[in-house]
Amino acid sequence: MTERIEKDSLGSHTVPGTVYYGIQTLRALENFPITGTPIHAELVVALAHVKKAAALANAEMKRLPEPIANAIVQAAEEVAQGMWADQFVVDSIQGGAGTSINMNMNEVLANRALEIMGHVKGDYFYCNPNNHVNMSQSTNDAIPTALRIASYTLAEKLTATMRELLDGFERKSRELDDVIKMGRTHLQDAVPIRMGQEFGAYAKVLARDIGRISRAAEGLLSVNMGATAVGTGLNASEDYIEKVVALMAEELKIPIRSASDLVDATQNTDAYTELSGSLKVCAMNMSKICNDIRLMASGPMVGLGEISLPSRQPGSSIMPGKVNPVMAEVVNQVAFQVMGNDHTICMASEAGQFELNVMGPVIIFNLLQSLKIMRNALDVFNRYLLEGLEANRERCRSYVDRSFGVVTALNPHLGYDVAAQLVKEAMATGLTIKEIILERNLLTKEEMDEILDPVQMTTPGIAGERLLQDPK
Amino acid sequence: MTERIEKDSLGSHTVPGTVYYGIQTLRALENFPITGTPIHAELVVALAHVKKAAALANAEMKRLPEPIANAIVQAAEEVAQGMWADQFVVDSIQGGAGTSINMNMNEVLANRALEIMGHVKGDYFYCNPNNHVNMSQSTNDAIPTALRIASYTLAEKLTATMRELLDGFERKSRELDDVIKMGRTHLQDAVPIRMGQEFGAYAKVLARDIGRISRAAEGLLSVNMGATAVGTGLNASEDYIEKVVALMAEELKIPIRSASDLVDATQNTDAYTELSGSLKVCAMNMSKICNDIRLMASGPMVGLGEISLPSRQPGSSIMPGKVNPVMAEVVNQVAFQVMGNDHTICMASEAGQFELNVMGPVIIFNLLQSLKIMRNALDVFNRYLLEGLEANRERCRSYVDRSFGVVTALNPHLGYDVAAQLVKEAMATGLTIKEIILERNLLTKEEMDEILDPVQMTTPGIAGERLLQDPK
Amino acid sequence: MTERIEKDSLGSHTVPGTVYYGIQTLRALENFPITGTPIHAELVVALAHVKKAAALANAEMKRLPEPIANAIVQAAEEVAQGMWADQFVVDSIQGGAGTSINMNMNEVLANRALEIMGHVKGDYFYCNPNNHVNMSQSTNDAIPTALRIASYTLAEKLTATMRELLDGFERKSRELDDVIKMGRTHLQDAVPIRMGQEFGAYAKVLARDIGRISRAAEGLLSVNMGATAVGTGLNASEDYIEKVVALMAEELKIPIRSASDLVDATQNTDAYTELSGSLKVCAMNMSKICNDIRLMASGPMVGLGEISLPSRQPGSSIMPGKVNPVMAEVVNQVAFQVMGNDHTICMASEAGQFELNVMGPVIIFNLLQSLKIMRNALDVFNRYLLEGLEANRERCRSYVDRSFGVVTALNPHLGYDVAAQLVKEAMATGLTIKEIILERNLLTKEEMDEILDPVQMTTPGIAGERLLQDPK
Amino acid sequence: MTERIEKDSLGSHTVPGTVYYGIQTLRALENFPITGTPIHAELVVALAHVKKAAALANAEMKRLPEPIANAIVQAAEEVAQGMWADQFVVDSIQGGAGTSINMNMNEVLANRALEIMGHVKGDYFYCNPNNHVNMSQSTNDAIPTALRIASYTLAEKLTATMRELLDGFERKSRELDDVIKMGRTHLQDAVPIRMGQEFGAYAKVLARDIGRISRAAEGLLSVNMGATAVGTGLNASEDYIEKVVALMAEELKIPIRSASDLVDATQNTDAYTELSGSLKVCAMNMSKICNDIRLMASGPMVGLGEISLPSRQPGSSIMPGKVNPVMAEVVNQVAFQVMGNDHTICMASEAGQFELNVMGPVIIFNLLQSLKIMRNALDVFNRYLLEGLEANRERCRSYVDRSFGVVTALNPHLGYDVAAQLVKEAMATGLTIKEIILERNLLTKEEMDEILDPVQMTTPGIAGERLLQDPK
Repeated sequence: MTERIEKDSLGSHTVPGTVYYGIQTLRALENFPITGTPIHAELVVALAHVKKAAALANAEMKRLPEPIANAIVQAAEEVAQGMWADQFVVDSIQGGAGTSINMNMNEVLANRALEIMGHVKGDYFYCNPNNHVNMSQSTNDAIPTALRIASYTLAEKLTATMRELLDGFERKSRELDDVIKMGRTHLQDAVPIRMGQEFGAYAKVLARDIGRISRAAEGLLSVNMGATAVGTGLNASEDYIEKVVALMAEELKIPIRSASDLVDATQNTDAYTELSGSLKVCAMNMSKICNDIRLMASGPMVGLGEISLPSRQPGSSIMPGKVNPVMAEVVNQVAFQVMGNDHTICMASEAGQFELNVMGPVIIFNLLQSLKIMRNALDVFNRYLLEGLEANRERCRSYVDRSFGVVTALNPHLGYDVAAQLVKEAMATGLTIKEIILERNLLTKEEMDEILDPVQMTTPGIAGERLLQDPK
Repeated sequence: MTERIEKDSLGSHTVPGTVYYGIQTLRALENFPITGTPIHAELVVALAHVKKAAALANAEMKRLPEPIANAIVQAAEEVAQGMWADQFVVDSIQGGAGTSINMNMNEVLANRALEIMGHVKGDYFYCNPNNHVNMSQSTNDAIPTALRIASYTLAEKLTATMRELLDGFERKSRELDDVIKMGRTHLQDAVPIRMGQEFGAYAKVLARDIGRISRAAEGLLSVNMGATAVGTGLNASEDYIEKVVALMAEELKIPIRSASDLVDATQNTDAYTELSGSLKVCAMNMSKICNDIRLMASGPMVGLGEISLPSRQPGSSIMPGKVNPVMAEVVNQVAFQVMGNDHTICMASEAGQFELNVMGPVIIFNLLQSLKIMRNALDVFNRYLLEGLEANRERCRSYVDRSFGVVTALNPHLGYDVAAQLVKEAMATGLTIKEIILERNLLTKEEMDEILDPVQMTTPGIAGERLLQDPK
Repeated sequence: MTERIEKDSLGSHTVPGTVYYGIQTLRALENFPITGTPIHAELVVALAHVKKAAALANAEMKRLPEPIANAIVQAAEEVAQGMWADQFVVDSIQGGAGTSINMNMNEVLANRALEIMGHVKGDYFYCNPNNHVNMSQSTNDAIPTALRIASYTLAEKLTATMRELLDGFERKSRELDDVIKMGRTHLQDAVPIRMGQEFGAYAKVLARDIGRISRAAEGLLSVNMGATAVGTGLNASEDYIEKVVALMAEELKIPIRSASDLVDATQNTDAYTELSGSLKVCAMNMSKICNDIRLMASGPMVGLGEISLPSRQPGSSIMPGKVNPVMAEVVNQVAFQVMGNDHTICMASEAGQFELNVMGPVIIFNLLQSLKIMRNALDVFNRYLLEGLEANRERCRSYVDRSFGVVTALNPHLGYDVAAQLVKEAMATGLTIKEIILERNLLTKEEMDEILDPVQMTTPGIAGERLLQDPK
Repeated sequence: MTERIEKDSLGSHTVPGTVYYGIQTLRALENFPITGTPIHAELVVALAHVKKAAALANAEMKRLPEPIANAIVQAAEEVAQGMWADQFVVDSIQGGAGTSINMNMNEVLANRALEIMGHVKGDYFYCNPNNHVNMSQSTNDAIPTALRIASYTLAEKLTATMRELLDGFERKSRELDDVIKMGRTHLQDAVPIRMGQEFGAYAKVLARDIGRISRAAEGLLSVNMGATAVGTGLNASEDYIEKVVALMAEELKIPIRSASDLVDATQNTDAYTELSGSLKVCAMNMSKICNDIRLMASGPMVGLGEISLPSRQPGSSIMPGKVNPVMAEVVNQVAFQVMGNDHTICMASEAGQFELNVMGPVIIFNLLQSLKIMRNALDVFNRYLLEGLEANRERCRSYVDRSFGVVTALNPHLGYDVAAQLVKEAMATGLTIKEIILERNLLTKEEMDEILDPVQMTTPGIAGERLLQDPK
């Protein structure tokens, strides 16, 4: 295999002839053999868009000669379409605040541009990774801008999936609106509720989560392109800054704008912690919902058995016929992962110093992962669990009939203490609440039936209110 | 000391004659000797407001006789004003989803109301903790409503303090706008920046934090009063629900409203995790700012020494004359506490099951603490550190003169590689960058001075742009 | 009220005549109005022991005159016995690495010593907080030493309580050893298990937790007394160091020893993170156990109902007769608190810089709280829940009879696929597994009964192994 | 491409003819498209060892025919050597407690065994994934056993790397033992220390970390093979259990043993949380060390500049000549990742229910990642940063000469207050401490030089102790 020699300020290095990256990427490979996982493809694509816009803006400013700009643009478009994906090899966790990611891109684009222009790879006189591809930029503006684009894009996809799930919950809420069951607090029998109300509550909290994530994503739209090294914009003209952001917004059809304070936008990472925080809130909510569903689906014979879930895979390698709520379990686990990722992101965010947070790579790694796995998990949860979820109506109804929780409706009529006494008696004697009421002449049968109608209990109001002549 | 005997559904218990709480509070004291810290006073006050509004609404509904209602209202007002604070004795961490908090209040109000009406304490026939004070309510609506009121109120106070701090940062930003210093990335010398720009960036991120916390606090305004046990509103009429919320809003001058879905509002705790999450983001930002300030103030003789902080206390019990950045350190620690509290809140939130999250007490304990300590810490930070912070201007300027970072401005003129070479030579020879440039005739003195003006470098633009005839 | 004027290196301050603390404590009160919670009493006691030992060692070194030493010793003994507790007023979260705690103690002891010697408070010529009480010490050795003593002592108390709980689990394991029930995985019916085996597993994990916490506590026994400011021992002679540690060990009957490297012992906080980490592991285990117990106790009518818990308090202010598993819920919440505290401690630990971790106060606040609340919660859990826990034997047995999970025992005989087919058929037809087996002549009745004996299934072995002539 | 049809209890599925996995793996691929990252290779290898041992043990028990056992053993050995790695395709985060991982392995081994025996893939009559490969096993014992083997093996590798790093710190400690510098507390000048003492302290805490991780790894050696579904050992004979564990221990040369309580070992995950916790403690310690090193290396011109680090890569795409402490930064980020992973693992651990923790996959994903990235990061940190780290001796010494911290040594001679006064005067006048002492005749020049010898200050003792005739 042919090779070429590249050099940088620290020395020179042999580079395999076939690869598009160069010496700085090789240094990064040697320095950071950490996770074995390369950077997220979404970041590569977003960074390619950044580089394309920068080349166009620099050309327009007459700082970058047209032929070089054109070649860089073509190269960047190829990368944005997924070509050369195997050339982005630096590790997800790396020192240097993303310099290695940026230089990996600069080198690949320079070499591909050289090829396009008819030069050989490594002949950086004609197109240089730093002077041409990285012109008017720094790692410290190009990488955060790319991260913001990538995470905004993924957040949009996530909320689209969440809206589908919201539809699913709402549909299920309507479908199960007439399923009466016992509500539970403290895992103890409480008072009747309709299953549709439960799924309606799931819909409501998810709707708020969509709002939270969308609002947090808005914060990503302010980018610091042109901030260069520390946010002061050294080596980036104001015209260029305006131009490069406008070009990205147009190309990506995303309303990104230039941050009003580039120093702020370069050093602060709160947009990421805010987004991650909103993902975490959603993750906790979804985990609670999945816990409920797993409890409702517990059984089949010796659990609550209030619902049945679609069978997605044999549940055991040893227990025949077992089917597990795997689509809920995977959401629980994703929730825990998102929670842990948020923790990592927060610590990394707190570790910023002065004009820069150098912990960017681990933030990128975790934030984009959280966005992706949340979406993937909610999507399969919706399609493989929620759509086929069915209520076991008879069992739910039998629970209501069997439970003592309905005595709560007696409070306004008999008082809390008498009602509590009824429960104790029922548990001791095996009689039903109704039997004891009648036996002791506490109410007439008509009164009792009016007060103890479980469906009525699932909406606001005092059961048998008309029977209350005057307050006790 | 006289005693009275009280009983509940589990049995009877001797109660000291002097106390206003009763048997259920005593059970809680026995069951939960956990932290030794009673519930936050703010929650007690908020819950008293809830009880007052409920009594008024029930009276208006003709369910609660006027004399009893009046006595409860008076008792609640007394508690809201801070009277009987020593009667709220249940522990901050307790099982039972807040039932013990609610019953502590119900019992104190009942006994105080009895006293007001001329009855003896414990004579619950005339005013019963459950039937009268707790009428139309459940722990599951009264406690969340009180928590929302208490945390909204504290969030308002916090953001007010944050706005003062924001003023402080902005004032300091203007005051230090002409202090030129070296920007730093990776703790390594980067390019010049003005100290005013740094404090301006602190102001910007804090402004966003105010926005985040305010938005999160909005979410607290939907209350679930009338939800009763599981959100279905059993035993609470629609008129009552409307009335009780309106009464609270009017009394407290807070735009609280009835949640559109009471089942949702009873079981979901996302409003708390959202608020806590926004506090955490702010905490991380403030911790980073304090780290910066501690670094800038490091010294006095062998640190960076860019700023001086007011002396607040002798810094050492052994090292004479030592003064430490204690007001920044306390903010760091509060930040860690808020971060840990958020973690607790999130786990507690995830642990909700079905119609209720029974982990309310630990959420209350941590959320209200976070709100209070954030406010307290930011207040003293502003007054005792930020106001008196001063720049060491000469030292900052000398840093700029001594550093190599300014060569970045040479990139557009000489190229990245030549500029890097200059740094290496300067480090090796001890010559200044300028000396080498002139010695090697890379630029004329005029060109050089125009390009290497550090103040110019702190705003966007290519230093000496007019010298660039055409792009390289 | 009379007053006195005190001064320190920053100026002078009026001090109320009645208080024993002085100017530096007052500065701390002004600087740090953060949590409103004073430092843990256990730390005060431990620090008093440290001061007593230092005074004695300094006297023996002939550096501290006998009369002053004697007075300090008496004052310290009084504090160690709980006197003057109201004089320790500095806030739990404070800047300055504990200097304010140390000076609060130095001032109280100096003034009390002055009183003992017949001088007036504030007349520090005769006994000075820094020169006499703090002689040979720094905040940086006295406070960590006190923290180690306090946390070791609390850890010992915690493990003692854990051993009682371990006894409780083991007793319950024996008591319930013959209760056959369905084991569950994924909340789905699995195969039979004895309830005694479940409680035995709880005992086992708790026993490991005791081991972990005990081992972690060992790490606290190395103290850095004599390290003074940065661990080099400046101003502390080797004889003194040896003496002061020996005195503390003797007095406290704790095998504390001088750390082999005082620089290490002064700057590193891993002993605390290790202990907190071991508490966290225990907390997670106990939370899981409590979740199990709450599930087993769910009902009474529409839950699993496998066990009954003692009634500890009425479970609802609205639902009569409801009893909740409050003693398990409080353990869950304590677990979340311990987990959050660990987070705070870890972040604070990571924030150490150079020769000191200045975040000591927030570490102290959280670590001692975790130790105390864990102990308190496990104690009441044991006494109020575990001791009275009873199995609902008939229900458990009926679960086994009703479930399909027993088919797993058929695998070696009929193969996984056939067994899975049986379950499907049983669910579809309503027939029992046994009925289908006989109907289809898969096994004789004798074979079937031998294989499907549920008690047999709860120990290792292949049910009906002798029937397997040769492997399939 | 040829295809085959496979079926399981839920139906049938077309499988590509070339692949070794089967229908259940395909279901998992459809159900869990979550992270895009397949399970860790180390787990695959460990699980292959488990399957080999199980096949041999079953053959010895005469339950598995020799030819089938031999074919499974050969297939498992191939997998253990890294063959067929591309056949392990299920996602790292998946529902089902690892059933999909286990079935992926069972299917690959079955099909490869079929091939070895001369049958076609999918002809499971001759070798069945469940009945033969999974014989006497459950996911619930095979996967935890594999995880324990994999994590123990990785922990051993990690501690080996840590021991190399420990050597590095100790070597550096000796090399820098004569470098005198100013110790710092609160980032403020404190008293002199030798740089060797600092690196010695790093060595000490790392040595404790090695101990902690090793001890935690011991806990992994108890495996639950033979526990089968819930720990009762149903379908696994005692002879088999003894045999299979002995075979694994022998093959792997790891002292694994059968857990004394298989129910406990199946449901509890504390061994993982303990190991993860010990990794976290180490991560926090290393992060603190890296923070110190980055501070010491700050500069080159306007930072502390106490040490120089090897240049590993150009530090900026825009600032020529900049070199950043990237090898320390990557350790910080790995520390944050390990901390976040620990959080995920803890939440997953707490989520265990009854006889099983179904969150195993996310625990595996995070625990093995933490072990690997810690090792990778510490290895490159040692080789690329620590080995080449050099002290800037002159600068360090000049710091000592310039600082006021040395006045601490005057306390025993002049008292704290006088010494504090000296510092104030020196700062106000610009005079040195020594000049003021002489000017004011506080000490003779000889006394002063004896007391203020900085090297002497770095060891315990009172400088100029012989000058103290009697205590003040």
